[in-house]
Amino acid sequence: MELLKQRILTDGVVSSDNVLKVDTFLNHQVDVELLGAIAEEFERIFQDKPINKVFTIESSGIAVACFVAQRLGVPLVFAKKAQSVNLEGDVFATRIESYTHRRVFDVIVSKKYLSAEDHILIVDDFLANACALDGLIEIAEEAGAIIEGIGIVIEKGHQRGGAGLRERGYPLTSLAIIESMNAETGEIIFRS
Amino acid sequence: MELLKQRILTDGVVSSDNVLKVDTFLNHQVDVELLGAIAEEFERIFQDKPINKVFTIESSGIAVACFVAQRLGVPLVFAKKAQSVNLEGDVFATRIESYTHRRVFDVIVSKKYLSAEDHILIVDDFLANACALDGLIEIAEEAGAIIEGIGIVIEKGHQRGGAGLRERGYPLTSLAIIESMNAETGEIIFRS
Repeated sequence: MELLKQRILTDGVVSSDNVLKVDTFLNHQVDVELLGAIAEEFERIFQDKPINKVFTIESSGIAVACFVAQRLGVPLVFAKKAQSVNLEGDVFATRIESYTHRRVFDVIVSKKYLSAEDHILIVDDFLANACALDGLIEIAEEAGAIIEGIGIVIEKGHQRGGAGLRERGYPLTSLAIIESMNAETGEIIFRS
Repeated sequence: MELLKQRILTDGVVSSDNVLKVDTFLNHQVDVELLGAIAEEFERIFQDKPINKVFTIESSGIAVACFVAQRLGVPLVFAKKAQSVNLEGDVFATRIESYTHRRVFDVIVSKKYLSAEDHILIVDDFLANACALDGLIEIAEEAGAIIEGIGIVIEKGHQRGGAGLRERGYPLTSLAIIESMNAETGEIIFRS
């Protein structure tokens, strides 16, 4: 998606060979107009699928997933990190390791909101090692939900996550795939 | 807001005299159509203010704040809980106590995204003891930003947060204020 790639080139900061900071527009400050365009693109890609729910994980996936759910006219469900006293009863649960936060999270989804009746589109802002996505996929499959698509805003193609998911046959689409980044020069090269 | 109150009566669950569960439509599964209507209502209320940014805190504030920012045509900034390796440099920071999670969080906002130039609308899904809101207000005031409004979806009027903020003169509007809840009968009474 050209608009997104241009924005990454303009405002993204390569702070190490593995870390691309896009907090100007995606995951701290959020450019809702850009996210609207991103959601429109995901709608174009996935509109022929019988999606009845968008599924993401808190926190930074929520913004983009909201707009995608709005475009598709379906509810959003977001998985929660760690147990909260307000979420009781039966839950699907797994653990994921966060590269960004350098820790392990418990991730839960109430069984009320995901079932074998659901045809879901998984949406997230970033895909690197796919730890978070693997967790969401595990929960979705435990629930018996059909994964109709996986939509990612930015994939770091030089890390192993995306390749692994494609090998396993998941219908993954990333709007911008970064082939390589150079922290010294700041250069970002996209996969064409 | 009548539509919201009806939804709370239909789908809200009083699980103790202090806990109202609305995870069917607000903070686990998200009804994006309802959130669109909520955002329209906040736009109506705050449209005459010179708001240039919507400000919230992860995670459950993000969904509603996204739609409000979209209606107002301004960016969203969300405060982050705990330090992430991707957020370096100068930040505004405070600590808040979460009733829901029964723990204390560090909350940070990059100084790049909040300044004395900003006229902000603070948006959150819930207001009870105002611990989270107090943290957001503290950060906003430290940044020198003007708080043009505070928009809350559900205020638990029987807890002290809202009254305290109104006494201190903050322009607080809650779309539904709960006067009392009864965990035994499930009854929910709104402030008129």
